[in-house]
Amino acid sequence: MSLSDPATAIAAARERIAPFVHRTPVLTSRRVDAIAGASLVFKCENFQRGGAFKARGAFNAVMSLSDDEAAGGVCTHSSGNHGAALALAAQTRAIPCHVVIPANTAGAKRAAIDGYGAIIHVCEPTMAAREALAAQVMAETGAVFVHPYDNDVVIAGAATAAAELIEQAPDLDIIVAPIGGGGLISGTSLSARAFGHGVAVIGAEPAGADDAARSFVARQVIPQTNPQTIADGLRASLSERTLRYMLRGVAEVVTAPEFAIVDAMRLVWSAMKILIEPSSAVPLAAMLESRKPFAGRRVGVILTGGNVDLDHLPW
Amino acid sequence: MSLSDPATAIAAARERIAPFVHRTPVLTSRRVDAIAGASLVFKCENFQRGGAFKARGAFNAVMSLSDDEAAGGVCTHSSGNHGAALALAAQTRAIPCHVVIPANTAGAKRAAIDGYGAIIHVCEPTMAAREALAAQVMAETGAVFVHPYDNDVVIAGAATAAAELIEQAPDLDIIVAPIGGGGLISGTSLSARAFGHGVAVIGAEPAGADDAARSFVARQVIPQTNPQTIADGLRASLSERTLRYMLRGVAEVVTAPEFAIVDAMRLVWSAMKILIEPSSAVPLAAMLESRKPFAGRRVGVILTGGNVDLDHLPW
Repeated sequence: MSLSDPATAIAAARERIAPFVHRTPVLTSRRVDAIAGASLVFKCENFQRGGAFKARGAFNAVMSLSDDEAAGGVCTHSSGNHGAALALAAQTRAIPCHVVIPANTAGAKRAAIDGYGAIIHVCEPTMAAREALAAQVMAETGAVFVHPYDNDVVIAGAATAAAELIEQAPDLDIIVAPIGGGGLISGTSLSARAFGHGVAVIGAEPAGADDAARSFVARQVIPQTNPQTIADGLRASLSERTLRYMLRGVAEVVTAPEFAIVDAMRLVWSAMKILIEPSSAVPLAAMLESRKPFAGRRVGVILTGGNVDLDHLPW
Repeated sequence: MSLSDPATAIAAARERIAPFVHRTPVLTSRRVDAIAGASLVFKCENFQRGGAFKARGAFNAVMSLSDDEAAGGVCTHSSGNHGAALALAAQTRAIPCHVVIPANTAGAKRAAIDGYGAIIHVCEPTMAAREALAAQVMAETGAVFVHPYDNDVVIAGAATAAAELIEQAPDLDIIVAPIGGGGLISGTSLSARAFGHGVAVIGAEPAGADDAARSFVARQVIPQTNPQTIADGLRASLSERTLRYMLRGVAEVVTAPEFAIVDAMRLVWSAMKILIEPSSAVPLAAMLESRKPFAGRRVGVILTGGNVDLDHLPW
C-alpha cells in the first residue's frame, strides 16, 4: 500500500479498522470557547481503544498484513501509546507482539503494554540500543517491524481521525493536531486535502521539543536533541517522510511553553470533565498563546490521548 | 404543578429545559463491564451544564415561575451543585439568585456559585442557621425558595435524565442512581414507571450516610446524623416526599463502603477518561460490592456530576 492515492488509502483504512476502533465523539465547551475566543470542536481520541489515536494506525498495520506476514508477529520499540496500541491490535489478531522498551520506562506504561499480552524486551535507554535489540528480535522471530510514525500504513490509519472529524464538523476553518514524530499531522493533512473542503491544518508542538517547527521553516529535518517537555508523546523527531507530508499540507506550526500546556490540560479537565494527557493539551495551549490565526474561527482540535498517571499529575 | 401525572409533568419539564441543558451522551466501557460482570451504560451528567444533573431541576424550577413570581428572584441554601445550578438558571433568566452557604464551604464551591452571579449569604454551619437566614432573605427580597430535592418541580426536572437514558438505551434491565436527599432517585423511579418498559430502579448510597437504606426498610424517614463519606453530594436526609416516591418505585437500596467509592471513582477516570465526583462513583461501587442483583444484566448508571477539586483528589 502507498499513499500515492491518499483518499483511497484512508477510505480503505477506515473500512479495515472499523470493527476494532471507536468512531470517537466530538465535544464542545462554552467555557473553553469563551477563553479561546474561537469556536472549538474537540475530537476525543482519549476515548479511543487503548486510550489514544494510536490504535488507528496500529490496527491498520496489523490488519493489513497477509497471513504469512502476520505469522511471525509484529515488533516495535515505542514505550508509549503506540506500543500499547500495537499490542492490542496484535492480541486482537492473535499474533505475537514484541515491544522493545528502555529500562527506565514508567511502570504504568509497561503495565499497559503487558496488559495487552505483548512480549516485552528491555534495553538500555538509548535509540541505538532500542534499534539493535529490535533488529535482533526481528531476526530471531520473523516479526514485522511497525514504526510508530515513519510508515504510510500507520499514517493512513492516523488519518482516519481527521476524516471522521471532518464528517462530524463539516464547517471547520482549521484543524490543529500535535506533532511528535509527525504521523498524526501527516495523516491529518492528507485527510484535510482529500476530504476537507479547504480546511487548513496547523501543527502544535511544545516549545521544549520544537524540532518540527524548526524543520518546517528550514525545509529539512533538524533532529530533536534533548527534548524538555511534559508532553511525553511529542519528544520524537520528524522523519524525512513526515516532514515531506507536512511541507505539502500544513499551513503553520505553532508552539506552546510548558506552563501553558499544564494550564490547558487543567482547563480541559475542569471545564470539560474529560481526562487528557499532556500531549493532547498542546494544541489548545498553543492556540491560547498564538491567538491570531485562530481568533473567531471554527477550529477542530484532535485530543490525542488520555493516558495519564493519576498518582503524578502536573499540578 | 404536581406529580399526580408524572409522564405529563416530566414531558413538560423536558420541553421547558431543552433550550438550556444538554442531552448528555451515554458511554460504555469494555474494561468496566469485564470488572463488573454486567453490561453498563453510563449516563454522563458530569457533562451537564454546571457539571451536574442539578441543572435539570434548577432550570425546570426557574423557568416554571410566572414573571410575577420570578421578579423577586430565587433562593436556596445548598452549598453544592444545586446552589451553582440554581445560580446558572437564574442568571439565564436574568433574575436574582440568593444562595445561603455555611462559613466552612470549600472555596471551589463558593467560586462556582459566585461565578454564575449569585448573591451569597454566609451563615453558621448548622441547618437551623441556614434555614433562618434563608427565611430572612426571602422575607426581605420576595425570593422564591427552591429546595434542592423536596420539591416536585425539581424532581420532575431530575427525572428527565432517566427519561433520556431510557431512550438512549431502551433495553435496560436496571437503572442505578445515587441517593442523597432523594430527588434524583424519586425522579428516576417516576421516569422508569412512566417510560421504562419494566426497568427496575435501584438506589445506591454510601455506607457512611445510609439513611435512605435504613428509611427504606423501616418505611419511615430516619434522618441522617453525622454522615461520614467522601461523597459530599449524598450527605443529606430523605424527606417524607422523596421516601414516598422511593417506596412506590424503587426495588432496593444498596450501599458501598468508602474504599470502594474511591476505587470505583478511580476506575471510571482511568478506564473511561472522564472526571466524575465521588458521589457519581457510588452506584458503580455498590454494584461491585453487591454483585448479585446486577450480574449479567444490562444496567444504566447515572453519573451525577464531575465537579471535583483537582488539587485534592482522594488517592
